Amino acid sequence: MSDGADRREPLARLLAPASVAIVGASDRPGSFGARIFANLAAFRGRVDPVNGKYARLHDRPCYPEIAALPHVPDCAIIAVPRAAVQTVVEACAARGVGGVIVIASGYAETGLPDRIALQARLAAIARESGMRIAGPNTLGIVNYVLGAGLTFSAMPPVLPLRPHAIGIVSQSGSIGFALAQAVMRGVSVSHVLTAGNSCDVDVADCVAYLARDPACRAIACVLEGMAAPLRLVAAARAAWQADKPLVLYKMATGAAGAAAAMSHTGSLAGSEEAYAAALAGAGVVQVDRLEALIEAAAFFAKAPPPPADGVAVIATSGGAAIMAADKAERHGVALPQPQPATRAVLEAHIPDFGSPRNPCDVTAQVIADPAGLLACTEALLTDPHYGALVTTHQYAYPAATGRLPVFSRLGAQHGRIVCNVWVPEWLGGPGAEETERDPYLALFHSMDRCFAALAAWQHRARQRRLAPETLVRFAPAPARAEAARALHAAPDRVLTEGAAKRILALYGIEVPAERLVSSADAAVAAAEAIGFPVALKVESPDIPHKTEAGVIRLDLHDAAALRAACSEILAAARQAAAPPRIAGLLVQRMVPRGLEMMVGSRVDPLFGPLVVVGLGGVLVELLRDTALELAPVSPRQALAMLARLRGARLLDGFRGGPAVDRDRLAEVICRVSELAADQAPLLAEIDLNPLICTGTRIIAVDGLMVKQA
Amino acid sequence: MSDGADRREPLARLLAPASVAIVGASDRPGSFGARIFANLAAFRGRVDPVNGKYARLHDRPCYPEIAALPHVPDCAIIAVPRAAVQTVVEACAARGVGGVIVIASGYAETGLPDRIALQARLAAIARESGMRIAGPNTLGIVNYVLGAGLTFSAMPPVLPLRPHAIGIVSQSGSIGFALAQAVMRGVSVSHVLTAGNSCDVDVADCVAYLARDPACRAIACVLEGMAAPLRLVAAARAAWQADKPLVLYKMATGAAGAAAAMSHTGSLAGSEEAYAAALAGAGVVQVDRLEALIEAAAFFAKAPPPPADGVAVIATSGGAAIMAADKAERHGVALPQPQPATRAVLEAHIPDFGSPRNPCDVTAQVIADPAGLLACTEALLTDPHYGALVTTHQYAYPAATGRLPVFSRLGAQHGRIVCNVWVPEWLGGPGAEETERDPYLALFHSMDRCFAALAAWQHRARQRRLAPETLVRFAPAPARAEAARALHAAPDRVLTEGAAKRILALYGIEVPAERLVSSADAAVAAAEAIGFPVALKVESPDIPHKTEAGVIRLDLHDAAALRAACSEILAAARQAAAPPRIAGLLVQRMVPRGLEMMVGSRVDPLFGPLVVVGLGGVLVELLRDTALELAPVSPRQALAMLARLRGARLLDGFRGGPAVDRDRLAEVICRVSELAADQAPLLAEIDLNPLICTGTRIIAVDGLMVKQA
Repeated sequence: MSDGADRREPLARLLAPASVAIVGASDRPGSFGARIFANLAAFRGRVDPVNGKYARLHDRPCYPEIAALPHVPDCAIIAVPRAAVQTVVEACAARGVGGVIVIASGYAETGLPDRIALQARLAAIARESGMRIAGPNTLGIVNYVLGAGLTFSAMPPVLPLRPHAIGIVSQSGSIGFALAQAVMRGVSVSHVLTAGNSCDVDVADCVAYLARDPACRAIACVLEGMAAPLRLVAAARAAWQADKPLVLYKMATGAAGAAAAMSHTGSLAGSEEAYAAALAGAGVVQVDRLEALIEAAAFFAKAPPPPADGVAVIATSGGAAIMAADKAERHGVALPQPQPATRAVLEAHIPDFGSPRNPCDVTAQVIADPAGLLACTEALLTDPHYGALVTTHQYAYPAATGRLPVFSRLGAQHGRIVCNVWVPEWLGGPGAEETERDPYLALFHSMDRCFAALAAWQHRARQRRLAPETLVRFAPAPARAEAARALHAAPDRVLTEGAAKRILALYGIEVPAERLVSSADAAVAAAEAIGFPVALKVESPDIPHKTEAGVIRLDLHDAAALRAACSEILAAARQAAAPPRIAGLLVQRMVPRGLEMMVGSRVDPLFGPLVVVGLGGVLVELLRDTALELAPVSPRQALAMLARLRGARLLDGFRGGPAVDRDRLAEVICRVSELAADQAPLLAEIDLNPLICTGTRIIAVDGLMVKQA
Repeated sequence: MSDGADRREPLARLLAPASVAIVGASDRPGSFGARIFANLAAFRGRVDPVNGKYARLHDRPCYPEIAALPHVPDCAIIAVPRAAVQTVVEACAARGVGGVIVIASGYAETGLPDRIALQARLAAIARESGMRIAGPNTLGIVNYVLGAGLTFSAMPPVLPLRPHAIGIVSQSGSIGFALAQAVMRGVSVSHVLTAGNSCDVDVADCVAYLARDPACRAIACVLEGMAAPLRLVAAARAAWQADKPLVLYKMATGAAGAAAAMSHTGSLAGSEEAYAAALAGAGVVQVDRLEALIEAAAFFAKAPPPPADGVAVIATSGGAAIMAADKAERHGVALPQPQPATRAVLEAHIPDFGSPRNPCDVTAQVIADPAGLLACTEALLTDPHYGALVTTHQYAYPAATGRLPVFSRLGAQHGRIVCNVWVPEWLGGPGAEETERDPYLALFHSMDRCFAALAAWQHRARQRRLAPETLVRFAPAPARAEAARALHAAPDRVLTEGAAKRILALYGIEVPAERLVSSADAAVAAAEAIGFPVALKVESPDIPHKTEAGVIRLDLHDAAALRAACSEILAAARQAAAPPRIAGLLVQRMVPRGLEMMVGSRVDPLFGPLVVVGLGGVLVELLRDTALELAPVSPRQALAMLARLRGARLLDGFRGGPAVDRDRLAEVICRVSELAADQAPLLAEIDLNPLICTGTRIIAVDGLMVKQA
C-alpha cells in the first residue's frame, strides 16, 4: 500500500484497520489521547500519533496533521474538541482515510438546532467522500481479533479468541462497554461496536459487518431505535443467511422510554409491535431484559442445531428439578420421559429418594459418585429424545465444580450442549469462568432465562428447516393500477363504503351484494333484486362510524321494514351538527352469522405498510389480542399470525360456534396485505371490521379506507 | 434449668436452642456427625455429642444415648440412618427435648407406602408429645443470631448480623442453602430454615416464627406447595401485623412442576390462582423467578416506607436512563419531573449532552466531579416528589465505586433508600459487597427487577395506609339456614335453575320474575301475569347446559310464539339419549340488554370457597380474563377484583356500551361470596352466567349450583 490506496471497502477499513492514526494523541495521563494509545497496546497493526504539539510521542514520530502522515491510515480516531472536529474529518476524507471515529459529544443529542446542523455536516462529508464516520458521541469500538481498542473507555483485556466468540453492537456506548465486561468472566468477545449518534455508521452497518466476520459466532445487540429500521431488518436477514444468531434487546419500548430516546440520540422510535414483528420475521432472537442478552448470545454461539426436540434435566436437588419443570412448561420446552434403556441406567444408580425420571433428581449421592454421574449423564446424552442437557448448580464452594469436566467431555463426545444453571442468583462461584470458556458448556444465572434461550433455540431450528417461501401474488395484475385510479379519483381522505368495497373486490376480497340507491322506492327494487333480508346504511364520506351515528339498520325482511328504515336513518343522518354530504343509501344483502374477525392495515412512518389481524368486536380491541406483520405477508406468515392470537381456538369452533377455514382466512389476510403494500403511497389505513367468517366464506361486510394526508 | 425443664415453647427451643445434642456424632472426616459438629463451631450454646461408640469426642464427654445426657437439650439433631431414627426420636420425646431435626431421607418423598407410613409415625410422635420435628429429609437449619449451624450442609460463615438481616425459609433444603450463599456477597442473613418433608414443622411454622424474631427484618420464602396452605396465609398475616415484609417465590406453578412436586415432597399443589390471590391478600410480595427473591428481600429489609410516590433516576449513561424509563413504565412506577428548584441545580451542573430531567443523565463528567454529583444527588433526594433514588453502575472497575459513599451518606441523611442497579449482568465488581452491607443502599443486578421491587414497595405502602376493613354481612341472618335447608332438600347434585334462583334470592341477588308451569296454557297465563316478552326454558336436573341442548327460547313476544316454543323445546328435550326428568317449563320475564358478566364460586380442596368474576361470554373464557379471591370478600376486595380485569374499561361504557355501577356489582360479588362461604360444606360450585348489568341493576338470568359429591 505504498501508493496510499486501500482497495478494501471503507467500513472494513474502519472496523478492522491495518493502521490507525490517533488525532489528538497525547501523553498527558488520563487524557483521551493517552487512554486511546494505551488501549492500542496489543494492536497488531501500525499506530501513528497526530498532534502539532509533539515531534515524537510514545517513542515514535508524531505528525502535525493527517496530511503529513507518510501513509494513509485505514482508520483515524479523532480525540479533539468538538470545535476542531470538522476540519480534521475533512482532512481525513481528503487524504483517503477508510473511516474515522468521532468521540466528541454535544451534537444532535443536545436537541439544539445548531448542533443538529453540525452533525448533519459530518453526515454529508461521509456521504460525499465515501469515508465512513462512527459517532459522534461514541465511546468507540474494539476489534478483539486485531487487539485494537479504538476507544478512550476502560476496556476488558485482549485475550486469545475462542471459536464461539460473540460480537457486541450497541447504540449506547456505555451499555456496550458495560456488556463487554463479560470478557472478565470468561465470555469470548470478538468485537464491541458502539454506534453513538450514528451520523453515518449505525447499528445496522455494524450487524451487517459482523454477519460477514468469521471471528464472530453470534451477535448481541442493544437497540434504542432507528430512523430507518428496515436497514436493520436487512442486516438481520444477512446474519440469518450466514447462520449467525442475532440476539437483540430493544430499549425505549414504552412511551416514556421513547421520549428519553428522542432526547438521547435524536432517533425516531417506531412502533414497538412493528419492531418486534419485523425483527422476528428476520430470525432475530429478542430478549426483554438486558441481563438475558450476553447469556443468550454466548449460548447461541456454542449451541449446535438441536439434534432432537426434547431436553433432559439432571439436577441434584428436588427443588431445582421442580423449577426446571415449571420454566420448561412456561416456555414450551418439552421434557419427555427417558426411553426404557435410559430409565434402567438411571434406576440402577439413583437412590429411592431421588427420581429416575425427567427432570432427573440424581441426588447429591450420585453427584459424589463419579461412575454413577458418568453413567446417568451418558445415558441421557445418548437417549434419542434429548437434544440438550440442563443441569443445575446450587453451591459456589470449590468442591462443587467436580461435575464440570464430566459434562464437558460427554458434551463434546456426543455433540450436545450442556446448559449449566447457577441457582444462587448472580453469585458466580468457582467454575463459572471455566464453564464460559468451554465450547460444550453454556452458563445461565437464571432457570427462567435458560429455558427461554432453549425455547428460542428450538424455534430458530424449526424456522431454519422451513423451505424458503416465494411470495406469490393473489390479486390479478390489473388490480393494482385500477385500485390506484380509484384511490386517486376518490374526492375525500375517507372513502365511502361503496368505493372502498369496489377496491376490495378488485383484490379478490368478497363483499356482500349491494346497490347504491337514492330513494326508498329504488331501495325496495334493489332489495328485491339482490334478495331479502337486507341491511341499509347511509353512504357518506362524512360518517365513517355508522353504528355510533345511528345510520345503519340490519336484518330488514320486507319492503315495509325497508321503507321505514330509509326514513329513520336519513332522519338520523340529518341530526348531525354539520349536515353530512349524503351520496345515497346502500342496500346490502345480509350475510349469515359467523365468527367476526377484523383485518386492517396502516402505513407506519418507519416500517411502511403493516397488516393487523384480530378477533372482531369491542372486547378484543380492549384486550389487544391482535397479530401484526409487515405487509405483504405470505400464506405461511398469515397462518402464523392467526396461530398467535390468544383467542385462536375460536377459529376451530369453540363452544358450538362456527369453525373457520384458516387457509381461506389466511388468503384474505394476504390479499389485504397485498392491497396495503401496493397502494402504500396513497392509502394510509384499511379497516375491515367485521369480516364475517363461516367455514370457507369470508365476507367483508364493512370496509373503511383512509388515504394518505 | 437443672431440673431439665424448659418453659419456652418447643418451636423456639428447636429453632433458637440454648443447647444442642448431636445424635450420631462422629469424628470421621466427611461424616454427617463431624460436619454438623464443625457447623456448630461458632455456636454460643452447649453442644453434647451422643454416640455409643465413643466415650469422648471433640474434647468433651460423649453420651451413649439421649437418656444418658446430664441435662435436657433444647434441640437434638439426629444424624443416624433411617432405620434407627424412630427409636431416637421417641427417646428425645420421652426426655422432654424441645425439638429434633431428622436429616435422614427415604420417607414420603419416595412415594412408597411403607415409607409414607414411617413418616406418619414421626408426625404422630410430634403430635402426641408436643416435641417439634423438623424433617425428615431436611438439610437442617441455621440460626445465625446464635451462630448455630444445625446442618450437615456446607454453610456460609457466621458474621456479625446487621439490622437489615433477612430470614430464609425454603421447603427445598438445597435451594434454601443455595440462597444462603448471599452471605458471601454481603447480604446479612439471620436464619436459614429448610422444612424438607415437613412431617411436623413446615414453611408456615418457620414464617410465623420469623415474624416474631426481632433479628430478622424481612423474610425470603421458597414454596413448593402445602397440604394446608391457609396456615401459610395465617403466618403471612402475622408477618404483615409485625410489618415484616415477606417475599415469596412459589415453585411448582404448572402442571409439570406440580407433578414433580408430588413426587418430591408428597405435598399437594393447590390451584395457582388461589395461591396467588390468598398470598396477595395477606400482603405477600410474590416474585416469579428465584433470582429476584433475595434481591427483593434485601431491598425490603432496608427500605423505609416510601416518603413520596415518585422515584428519581440518576444515571451516567443515556442508555441506562432509557432502560430505567422503560422498566418504570412497565411496572407502573412514576418518574415525575423535578420541581423548578431541583431542575435549576441539575442544569447548573449537567453539560448540554446530558439531561437535567428525570431520568437524569448526569454524564460521566459529573460523576467525576464530586461537588457536582453531591449537588445533583442532594437536589433529587430533597425534592418532595421523590421517595427513592435509582442509580446505575456500568463498570466493574475499581475506580467506578467512588459514588457509593456519596449515595450512602445522603441516603442516611435524608432517610431515603438508594437503589443501585449493576448493569453488566451478574458481574458483581468492586463495591457490590459494600453496597449490600450499607443500610441505605440496595443492590440489584437487573433494571427490571429493581423497578418490580419498587412497584411492590409502593403497593405495600398503599395497602398499609388503608383503614382496616371489617367484613359486613349482606344477606339477612335467616338466609344461611334457609338456603342450607333448600340445599339439603334438593334431590340431585345439580340443582334445577328454579331451585338455584330461590337460593340466590335468599341472598339478595336479583333474579328475573319467573314461574314454573307444566303446560303451554299455564305458560301463557304465567307470561300474561309477569308480562311479555318472556324467555322459556325446560326445567330439568339432567340438563345443566340449556343452550347446547336446545331447550331455551328467548324474546317471545306473544302467546302464539310462546305456545310454539313450548312444543319445540319439549321435543328437543325428549331427543336426548337418556330421557331427562322434566320438572316443568320455566317462564321468565326477559331482561333488558346490558353488559354480560359472570360471577361464580368453587370450593378448592386446599383453600376452601373461592369467588371468581369475569366478563361474560365465550371469548373471556378463552382469554382467561378473570379475577379470583378467597370467599367471602369485602366490597373493597370486590372492587379491586373488577379493577384487575383487563377488560375493566367495559364497565365504564366502552364504545357506546352500557355503563355499570361498580359498587352495585361489587355488592353482588360480595353476596355470591357470602353464599359460597356460608354453604361451603354443601355447595361445591356456583355459576351465574350471564349476569346482566345495566347501570345499577344486576340480574342473574341463569344460575347453576352443584352440591358437594
